[in-house]
Amino acid sequence: MSSASPAPSFSGVVPPVATPLLPDGTIDHASLTRLVERLIDEGVSGLFALGSTGETAYFTDDQRVELLRTIVAANAGRVPVIAGAIELTAPRIIETARRLVEAGAQAIVTTAPLYTLNSAAEVADHFRTIAAAIDAPLWAYDVPVRVHTKLGVDLLVQLGTEGVIQGVKDSSGDDVSFRRLVAANEAAGRPLQLLTGHEVVVDAMALVGAAGVVPGLANVEAAGYVRLWNAAQQGDWTAARAEQERINRLFDIVFQPRGLSGDATGVGAFKAAMHARGIIDHATMADTVQALDADAVAGIRAILDELGLLPVAV
Amino acid sequence: MSSASPAPSFSGVVPPVATPLLPDGTIDHASLTRLVERLIDEGVSGLFALGSTGETAYFTDDQRVELLRTIVAANAGRVPVIAGAIELTAPRIIETARRLVEAGAQAIVTTAPLYTLNSAAEVADHFRTIAAAIDAPLWAYDVPVRVHTKLGVDLLVQLGTEGVIQGVKDSSGDDVSFRRLVAANEAAGRPLQLLTGHEVVVDAMALVGAAGVVPGLANVEAAGYVRLWNAAQQGDWTAARAEQERINRLFDIVFQPRGLSGDATGVGAFKAAMHARGIIDHATMADTVQALDADAVAGIRAILDELGLLPVAV
Amino acid sequence: MSSASPAPSFSGVVPPVATPLLPDGTIDHASLTRLVERLIDEGVSGLFALGSTGETAYFTDDQRVELLRTIVAANAGRVPVIAGAIELTAPRIIETARRLVEAGAQAIVTTAPLYTLNSAAEVADHFRTIAAAIDAPLWAYDVPVRVHTKLGVDLLVQLGTEGVIQGVKDSSGDDVSFRRLVAANEAAGRPLQLLTGHEVVVDAMALVGAAGVVPGLANVEAAGYVRLWNAAQQGDWTAARAEQERINRLFDIVFQPRGLSGDATGVGAFKAAMHARGIIDHATMADTVQALDADAVAGIRAILDELGLLPVAV
Amino acid sequence: MSSASPAPSFSGVVPPVATPLLPDGTIDHASLTRLVERLIDEGVSGLFALGSTGETAYFTDDQRVELLRTIVAANAGRVPVIAGAIELTAPRIIETARRLVEAGAQAIVTTAPLYTLNSAAEVADHFRTIAAAIDAPLWAYDVPVRVHTKLGVDLLVQLGTEGVIQGVKDSSGDDVSFRRLVAANEAAGRPLQLLTGHEVVVDAMALVGAAGVVPGLANVEAAGYVRLWNAAQQGDWTAARAEQERINRLFDIVFQPRGLSGDATGVGAFKAAMHARGIIDHATMADTVQALDADAVAGIRAILDELGLLPVAV
Repeated sequence: MSSASPAPSFSGVVPPVATPLLPDGTIDHASLTRLVERLIDEGVSGLFALGSTGETAYFTDDQRVELLRTIVAANAGRVPVIAGAIELTAPRIIETARRLVEAGAQAIVTTAPLYTLNSAAEVADHFRTIAAAIDAPLWAYDVPVRVHTKLGVDLLVQLGTEGVIQGVKDSSGDDVSFRRLVAANEAAGRPLQLLTGHEVVVDAMALVGAAGVVPGLANVEAAGYVRLWNAAQQGDWTAARAEQERINRLFDIVFQPRGLSGDATGVGAFKAAMHARGIIDHATMADTVQALDADAVAGIRAILDELGLLPVAV
Repeated sequence: MSSASPAPSFSGVVPPVATPLLPDGTIDHASLTRLVERLIDEGVSGLFALGSTGETAYFTDDQRVELLRTIVAANAGRVPVIAGAIELTAPRIIETARRLVEAGAQAIVTTAPLYTLNSAAEVADHFRTIAAAIDAPLWAYDVPVRVHTKLGVDLLVQLGTEGVIQGVKDSSGDDVSFRRLVAANEAAGRPLQLLTGHEVVVDAMALVGAAGVVPGLANVEAAGYVRLWNAAQQGDWTAARAEQERINRLFDIVFQPRGLSGDATGVGAFKAAMHARGIIDHATMADTVQALDADAVAGIRAILDELGLLPVAV
Repeated sequence: MSSASPAPSFSGVVPPVATPLLPDGTIDHASLTRLVERLIDEGVSGLFALGSTGETAYFTDDQRVELLRTIVAANAGRVPVIAGAIELTAPRIIETARRLVEAGAQAIVTTAPLYTLNSAAEVADHFRTIAAAIDAPLWAYDVPVRVHTKLGVDLLVQLGTEGVIQGVKDSSGDDVSFRRLVAANEAAGRPLQLLTGHEVVVDAMALVGAAGVVPGLANVEAAGYVRLWNAAQQGDWTAARAEQERINRLFDIVFQPRGLSGDATGVGAFKAAMHARGIIDHATMADTVQALDADAVAGIRAILDELGLLPVAV
Repeated sequence: MSSASPAPSFSGVVPPVATPLLPDGTIDHASLTRLVERLIDEGVSGLFALGSTGETAYFTDDQRVELLRTIVAANAGRVPVIAGAIELTAPRIIETARRLVEAGAQAIVTTAPLYTLNSAAEVADHFRTIAAAIDAPLWAYDVPVRVHTKLGVDLLVQLGTEGVIQGVKDSSGDDVSFRRLVAANEAAGRPLQLLTGHEVVVDAMALVGAAGVVPGLANVEAAGYVRLWNAAQQGDWTAARAEQERINRLFDIVFQPRGLSGDATGVGAFKAAMHARGIIDHATMADTVQALDADAVAGIRAILDELGLLPVAV
């Protein structure tokens, strides 16, 4: 990467932008534009486009470009935008990533290879190959529940020290490993920015040393995360914890659906809540992902109501 | 799928064609053509293009089309060709599959979704969506070590009965499940053709009811598998077992590399042996996959030599 | 182990004896005696006491001794008896095993350590320590679904060559590994006897080289397994397969229970069928294991009826 | 449980007591007594006997009783003592637990069943059965890396509400789940005391709502954990974090051994450091667990030296 402009910084609250769909499954650009506007209004400091919450795996590259263009246009340069290039291996990721950079992504985030059976050394070369081929900073996304590979602390800090990756989004669910990553990164002169993807422990991860958070739940309400983060930055851990606990009550929406898949449940609950709050026009899921039933939606509305998050009038 | 011509049948020995590469990492079309010629000479009854042994995950769609075209041209219609469309989800698989059908694939094989978190019902819809969108028969590829989803017996037989899939390549390593799949398929009127991907238990799986085998090792030597299969077809299980045991000594080549990844080890051993036998010009691996060291190659050559599989003169 | 008498041999059909219980949860010695008598009448060549099918993990050592004594007494020396000593680690296994040997076990079978986090070298020492401390041949039980450790081919053959273990009961569900174990054992001069625990692929595993089978389902009907094994020994693979396919229809009883645990489902189905056939007086499960519901029992009876396995009058 | 005396409370720093051994593998009571004395001197508020750090799985019940008696005698009633009863299932756990209560344990902690295949309902009955049979409060120990079962939030709070369990030691490595457990426990009126077993994130888990910590590393140095905990109790999160970061540098001792098992590495590093500090006389490991090599020990000493934790003279 040889860009002359300074690398964008991703810290604080950087929500993974959900993908509103019309009932026919095509992209709902109007709702997406409104969503981006709302996120920025509520104070987020960056946008994470085409992540898992954005159902990116279910879209073709043409659709991904289409989505990213709308996000970039709605953002209008107000906050930095990082985009996920989720594909199998380096050659395919590079193809996707180049299109996303061309469409306005200021940084690219990707995972270890999918489907293949690689060693840690091969995973390191995977990131090196991608970084060398794209004209934007690269981030590593550690999400073993989807990739079935855990990115090791030594690997990540080594790649940071080499300048291959600029940061890590950690959705590994392994706080011990994250703490060790923070420490190793400090010891190495802090080459990496470290974001957590776990929206229910942001106060704790901020205490531990996270530089920011990528909370899917912020699609439903981002303001709470911004307050939480500001309190943490000021060292007011009691306030941060109180805000986190309020947010975690909201997170209970993801436990309302019963018997559905992980994708149907998590993103489904977010979309149902966004729809209930009037943020998006439809709760349509990506094709082949099952819809929530009426009971789940009612449970989600009840939680929103309890927390005063339903609109007075829609 | 609405093709007027009868669906091609895949049974017997259907090797997954390896991908010979030049030292610069580009496709070695001359070696690939020679490999296809050899496989057909040795009596295989079909070709499985762009599978795991073919390192398909490491290639872009343009490269996949390029590979498939050479295989199809070299085959010249002598045996049916099925091609893997390995991608994340239905919309992306459909894009890839259509290009492969256009390039000459007579059937398409794909897996459950990658990266996403789906229920069995969603996986079924995934196959239904793909089958409805492509103009070729669809096969399911069950390889949990890579996909991290096991395709259930009920799901597969249901999809077979619906006409969504024509067959299954089972690389699940679960012989109990495969036996149950054979029985359920029989009970349903045999809608599916069932191929095993486990090259060291072909005699046993033939006894159990497999319709054929997809042996990566056949890239090194296919004639043994053809003999094994013919013996099994004639009910000569003693001869089938003896041939399998000879083949399994050859399979020990994959235990010569030490400390490398699964992909480097398995495909690496095949390529090293193919190169030692003069079948391909270089043992180059796909980019980011590590090469075997000299000790591993020497161990592989020793096994080939012991079995009389090295050429008298190269 | 320093016994003067020749080591007992375990091959052919060696069923894991189920544990009949009275409604109050205590051992039903009358049913157990009847079960052993029936197994021997039907032609089994050994008895595997205190295995998983015997719910051994749910019993104290006093109860295990009590169970074993009844089995040994009922057997009256007609076939050899091997007993499971299932405990956490070597010192605890040795305590249990010594009591079982004293109570009449002619061989002991145990697993890799439970709960601990050990290397392969430590697992090897675990077996060595046990073998040195007990006065009976030791067998290794490979059941990763319960132990969460897979015993490797090299480890097992090494322990066999050292004389530490006499055989292996393989319930790993990994036929590729089992085939490699057979080959490595042959290459080493056959120090090990290799039994498969997978009751639905006995024909295939016999072809592959198993010395016998430990079929939980034989508690319901052993005669079929004896016929199957005899056919296989005579090289009549067609007859062996036909018998296996009949047996596998019987095995469908384990798919009748819905939503219960693995132990409730598998052993529960065996006990329900044994009860329906009049082999045991009660289908009571070990304490804390849930009972089957009436629908499951009805489904099991229907399969028995279809196969002509219900008694004319009980 | 029907004890008249009030249930002991376990909160703050409750170290899992390591088991010093003589070179012949027998218990080193002198070192154990010294260790207990030191822990109490450094300010711990309870003792967790016979946990994983205590290598409890490797000892017979007689040895466990012997160990516990020495701990109880050395403690002399100064802090409450909870003891692990690690065994396969309820009947066997009850036998062990009764002996431990008789030997002075004021509470018992155990896990979900080992080896068996149970449902959540069966696991709940497992804890109910044990609690009803012993005369001491019961705690649940959630350590999936060893037990291969995760105890769910709903299950634990239900058991707490029923009075079956008094608390939970969480070594699940799943901070998201722990946060949800804290919240659900609060919502239920706080029936449970919740201890974390993750010694490197105690500051964060204290912020989140842990009632205490069970740090294996406290066997090497407990004073730091006491300072950390006191700071957290006073809401001085900056001081808590600083102390945690110092402790985490000490924790790097567990990364000095290379290529050994989990048990050899973790407990081995603790014992090597305790020996280097003069706390115990020998670093002997339980039988079949491999010893550290000289390089690992040297690396551990270097870290102790850097942190000023080596004695001036031993």
